[in-house]
Amino acid sequence: MGAFILRTAIAVPNQVESSAITADKIGKSVEWVCKRTGVAERHVAKIDDQIENLAAVAAHRALCGETPEALINASVSTRQLLPDLSVFIQRALGFDGVPCFSVNANCLSFLVALKLAHGLIASGTYRSILLVSAEFASRARNYAKPESAALLGDGAGSALISYSPDKNQSMPFFMHTWSDGAEATEIRSGGLHRHPSDPRTTDRDYLFSMNGPELFKLGNRKAVPAIKEFLHTENVEPNQIDVVIPHQASRPAIDVLLRIGFREDQIVSVIDRYGNCVAASIPIALAHAEAEGRLKPGKKIFFVGTAAGFSVGGALWTWLTLD
Amino acid sequence: MGAFILRTAIAVPNQVESSAITADKIGKSVEWVCKRTGVAERHVAKIDDQIENLAAVAAHRALCGETPEALINASVSTRQLLPDLSVFIQRALGFDGVPCFSVNANCLSFLVALKLAHGLIASGTYRSILLVSAEFASRARNYAKPESAALLGDGAGSALISYSPDKNQSMPFFMHTWSDGAEATEIRSGGLHRHPSDPRTTDRDYLFSMNGPELFKLGNRKAVPAIKEFLHTENVEPNQIDVVIPHQASRPAIDVLLRIGFREDQIVSVIDRYGNCVAASIPIALAHAEAEGRLKPGKKIFFVGTAAGFSVGGALWTWLTLD
Repeated sequence: MGAFILRTAIAVPNQVESSAITADKIGKSVEWVCKRTGVAERHVAKIDDQIENLAAVAAHRALCGETPEALINASVSTRQLLPDLSVFIQRALGFDGVPCFSVNANCLSFLVALKLAHGLIASGTYRSILLVSAEFASRARNYAKPESAALLGDGAGSALISYSPDKNQSMPFFMHTWSDGAEATEIRSGGLHRHPSDPRTTDRDYLFSMNGPELFKLGNRKAVPAIKEFLHTENVEPNQIDVVIPHQASRPAIDVLLRIGFREDQIVSVIDRYGNCVAASIPIALAHAEAEGRLKPGKKIFFVGTAAGFSVGGALWTWLTLD
Repeated sequence: MGAFILRTAIAVPNQVESSAITADKIGKSVEWVCKRTGVAERHVAKIDDQIENLAAVAAHRALCGETPEALINASVSTRQLLPDLSVFIQRALGFDGVPCFSVNANCLSFLVALKLAHGLIASGTYRSILLVSAEFASRARNYAKPESAALLGDGAGSALISYSPDKNQSMPFFMHTWSDGAEATEIRSGGLHRHPSDPRTTDRDYLFSMNGPELFKLGNRKAVPAIKEFLHTENVEPNQIDVVIPHQASRPAIDVLLRIGFREDQIVSVIDRYGNCVAASIPIALAHAEAEGRLKPGKKIFFVGTAAGFSVGGALWTWLTLD
């Protein structure tokens, strides 16, 4: 049994925050924000918005009336410790009875979930699986940390993965995690470590913390060679790829792909419009590429990205459609 | 490529809390605790214990010196929002570079992760995957809620899943989620919903909340028929199963399997010694069964359980060993 991506979709909160407004909040100039991050604007959820509702809007758009046989939430943002967010997304969709669970590989969650969904469909377990990533990253912005606060945005991306009885494709995949970089990107609260009952816990522990120079070093020394090695192992040259769907970490991070040999016109970049939407960045970029008509049958896609961990991962995918 | 469980292991905190002590904390008698829950004692982590270290001990025992190609954390307990717990477990194990991520299906996390690992091995993506579930459920005990506070315990279970070039097995699997039961088992904090910055948030939101009568109703009306239907679809009679590995929700919950047609001697119950260890209960019960010599080559295993969601799930598995 083969798996293919039947439809993709995006949902974002209505409220748009331009980088002029963000620059004010973090005490920097618009030029500083645009040069450092490449973000011109980002969507920001209102305080009463519920993440499961945004996820459900993206999911509805990808489903076009279908009910999937299973639902996988692939987000870092979560509603509560128990039950996991997938349950609340499933409820917002009204899919009572549909099995659901969550996959968390930080900013690579969607990519890992796609790999897992591919396996579940290939094994005949399910014929259709809805993947959805939804993030309210703006809630964790620390205005005293201009670089990350300028980057983060809110949004959701979704994809309906479907089986194909006749079209089969493998999904070459790689991932590495170098956990000496675990503290390079953190939200320290939300679990046992900086629990609200722990007197050491401060308000900063609820916010995003990022060590930019450390991430830059990890990216260059570890992620870049790993990406090159994967392409070499798979015997793929950058110019054989039609569309690169990268995690939208930042404009400079996306530009690292140019040094690996990809051309600007191969790379889907939506960082200017959405910012870094954590795990939702990859499906948002994918849905954009589809909406722009860049994903035609037979096109070779390279998903790639880094994540908190520090991790790097990627996969090759051939775009197929229902005849 | 076939997948089999090469080794299993358990790790628990040293500190044992007898039901006499628990009964005191919740203002009930020992008899009440034992009759309602079936728990005689549970292990309880000390306040400075780190969950990733307990997970690493269980993992080390299952690995016996091997380094897996990937690591999946299948726990509800988490260290922090970002990065996910798998990163910290990988670091505690010293497996720098090994890819890792988390799967959360509440108390069914281990079962879902086993299904996903089976797919990753069957597709040739990895030849060995370490699964680990670790829970510090005692940290969320609400002593004003005697029933759940009496149930919960701490522990970790682990399994090394390995490939077999010649032994192939499918893994018949089912899961349903009825999200109208989402509030029947909850920890409301840890995410966006009852955030520490929200004035509505109280200390109770950091603790476990369970609606026993509602769970009993969901179990009888929804879980039991779904389990029967799965066995019927797979053309399996209860007496054709050698070993049932249930989630250790409570002694009365495990006894529901008797009404489905399983015999006491088929069912692995360790609820008396460990309590309900959330997602770690299934791998702990599995490791117990292996240590007791109940899992011989060719034995038919039925994993089954309910979870916050409200979900039910199960899978058939044939025990294989390295020749």
